[in-house]
Amino acid sequence: MAVAVGPGMEELMNNPSKFRLIRTCPDSQARAGELMTPHGVVPTPVFSPVASQGTVKTLTPVEIKDIGLNMVLANTYHLYLRPGIPVIEKMGGLHKFMAWDGPILTDSGGYQIFSLAQLRQVSDEGVIFRSHIDGSQHLITPELAIQFQEALGADIIMVLDECPAYDENFEKMQEAVNRTHQWAERCQIAQKPGDQALYAIVQGGSFAELRRQSAAYLTALDFPGYAIGGLSLGEPKQETLAMIEDTVALLPEKKPRYLMGVGSPEDIVAAVARGVDVFDSALPTRIARHGALFTRLGRVNIRNAAYRQIESPADSDCDCDTCRTFSAAYLHHLFKSRELLGYRLATIHNLTFISNLMQKIKGAILDGTFTSFKEDFLASYQPTDEQIRLAQKQKWLKAKSRQQ
Amino acid sequence: MAVAVGPGMEELMNNPSKFRLIRTCPDSQARAGELMTPHGVVPTPVFSPVASQGTVKTLTPVEIKDIGLNMVLANTYHLYLRPGIPVIEKMGGLHKFMAWDGPILTDSGGYQIFSLAQLRQVSDEGVIFRSHIDGSQHLITPELAIQFQEALGADIIMVLDECPAYDENFEKMQEAVNRTHQWAERCQIAQKPGDQALYAIVQGGSFAELRRQSAAYLTALDFPGYAIGGLSLGEPKQETLAMIEDTVALLPEKKPRYLMGVGSPEDIVAAVARGVDVFDSALPTRIARHGALFTRLGRVNIRNAAYRQIESPADSDCDCDTCRTFSAAYLHHLFKSRELLGYRLATIHNLTFISNLMQKIKGAILDGTFTSFKEDFLASYQPTDEQIRLAQKQKWLKAKSRQQ
Repeated sequence: MAVAVGPGMEELMNNPSKFRLIRTCPDSQARAGELMTPHGVVPTPVFSPVASQGTVKTLTPVEIKDIGLNMVLANTYHLYLRPGIPVIEKMGGLHKFMAWDGPILTDSGGYQIFSLAQLRQVSDEGVIFRSHIDGSQHLITPELAIQFQEALGADIIMVLDECPAYDENFEKMQEAVNRTHQWAERCQIAQKPGDQALYAIVQGGSFAELRRQSAAYLTALDFPGYAIGGLSLGEPKQETLAMIEDTVALLPEKKPRYLMGVGSPEDIVAAVARGVDVFDSALPTRIARHGALFTRLGRVNIRNAAYRQIESPADSDCDCDTCRTFSAAYLHHLFKSRELLGYRLATIHNLTFISNLMQKIKGAILDGTFTSFKEDFLASYQPTDEQIRLAQKQKWLKAKSRQQ
Repeated sequence: MAVAVGPGMEELMNNPSKFRLIRTCPDSQARAGELMTPHGVVPTPVFSPVASQGTVKTLTPVEIKDIGLNMVLANTYHLYLRPGIPVIEKMGGLHKFMAWDGPILTDSGGYQIFSLAQLRQVSDEGVIFRSHIDGSQHLITPELAIQFQEALGADIIMVLDECPAYDENFEKMQEAVNRTHQWAERCQIAQKPGDQALYAIVQGGSFAELRRQSAAYLTALDFPGYAIGGLSLGEPKQETLAMIEDTVALLPEKKPRYLMGVGSPEDIVAAVARGVDVFDSALPTRIARHGALFTRLGRVNIRNAAYRQIESPADSDCDCDTCRTFSAAYLHHLFKSRELLGYRLATIHNLTFISNLMQKIKGAILDGTFTSFKEDFLASYQPTDEQIRLAQKQKWLKAKSRQQ
């Protein structure tokens, strides 16, 4: 793929945001760029699969690379609780521990503490919570969140943020936004000099006014990158897109924008059009383990009896290892038989679909054809029905807070 | 590896047993040979991993080949119930269905009906049983067992046998042996001309007299191969070995001998010394999913807290993908976190251990050093304590009959 003229590697290294904007779409906010990290260059827009516990579920690092994915997201909250930060530090850091030599992004644990852990007490100092694994009590502060992420050694690290439910009232949300700002500042001060890029997280739920405050406060602190947090948590999709649009408009053009926790194909395309560069989400891997596979026309479920005797692959348009090797009937059989290989083959397919989508998006931006690509894609891709989607999301969030 | 002088491929093809004996150990019954199958030559002694439902749990066919395993065992009982023989037939046979182009051995379903299914009624005609999946009622006869296995298209197929518990009394065991003989004869008659090798199964539990009768009756029928069934079902290990020794002595030298359901390293070595050529067992893959890993010194369990901070591989002597890539600490973490990748990595290790063991065994037989290899191996390999082993086996058999 042709790469437009831009600054050289040296200039990129000296650029504090470690981000190079290569091309912006003439008729949308979509943009192609590159993130420079200590473990290599990441072309953007980029999707990072989730490896919360130091593993993209079912796959080896070699498979993730073969799929064409360059950067994974691990989770400070999970790794802090198990195996523990000192263990990973002793094993030579997270890259070595999980045998992944590409870029890693770590979330600070903010979101997980507020969604998975049994919450005890939030104060300006930090948050005391109980482990979802064994109920043990822990305190995390902005300074500790940075210390842990420095010990893990990820390439991109995140500030500790307070992440309320999407339906909290304005006052509660305002309080969380203010605290997130104070914590971001403390994270920035706590960070040791080095080559990790620390991104701030814009919060504010669905309140445009709070988003505006948050973007203004954090951009004034001049972080190398900005995340949009607190979205895709059960609010209607139109609200998500409006908030992305409003927030991106307030962020500096030359810095990367990372939309946290969004990973459905239609949302990625829509968010790229609104100027997002970086995505992470457990959705493609999680729904794979339930038999849901992405296709050009939308999601299908391989558990459906219609696949019982289909000799062609689950997705005839797909060139992934799964679709090149196995019939839909075999994949259906593995799921009906609860065979672990099924979860793995479905994961390979969904991540390949997303990886190919990111490449097509990037190619279209570079070619100046992104808008027609987007229109074609969204015209054929049938998103999961909004009502079903919201019901599933609520069910999943509920199950998560109950079980874990 | 040097191969001794033997008959050419043409002669092998004309040999009804499709077996070539290459070398016999001068001071034990151990022997090296080759099985000729429509999907390639299988060097013996050989271990076949279990793919009951058409998948070696967690692994792809490419991985199984990379591990060095040439033949897998699938199960007529499981595949008959799900997805159903007609589905696999329509998908082009079992090889194509599971994307495995190497040799396949199918068990007839006899053992599974007597261990997994809710048994309804055995008669001379066949056996009526209820599915462990949905309780539906089915009849299987010797003729149907052959018809199903012909439809699946395995390279080596088995007669339908009656397989009582190891502690049945003599009269019950005698009855089962007699019926197994009648069924074997009917299977032989039912088999259509073709290139599938149909093996008979010697039964008789731990009664030497019944084993003798069984071997005599079945060898008179001149099958291309003979299996030793009804062992390793909870009886003391010394009894197993004595029965193997007695049975092998009664089997024709020029035909392959297949010990069903035995797969621990120490048992394989001991049974090879007693003249066994073919093995299958779910043990290496099943215990892998519980964190038990084979090493030169015996089994270890990666879940053990001692591995929490071990930077070296789980087995430093091992060259498998798992041990070359990941630390013991990481594998320990995956198991503690119940990550699916852990089950897969442990499976790769255990199957590689067994694959390497089979290669060493074969090399030692060809070099004439098998007895010293065996002594060295058994001197360093600490088998699982007999009491623990029996307790585990009973627990597993009980869980299996309850759950499935």
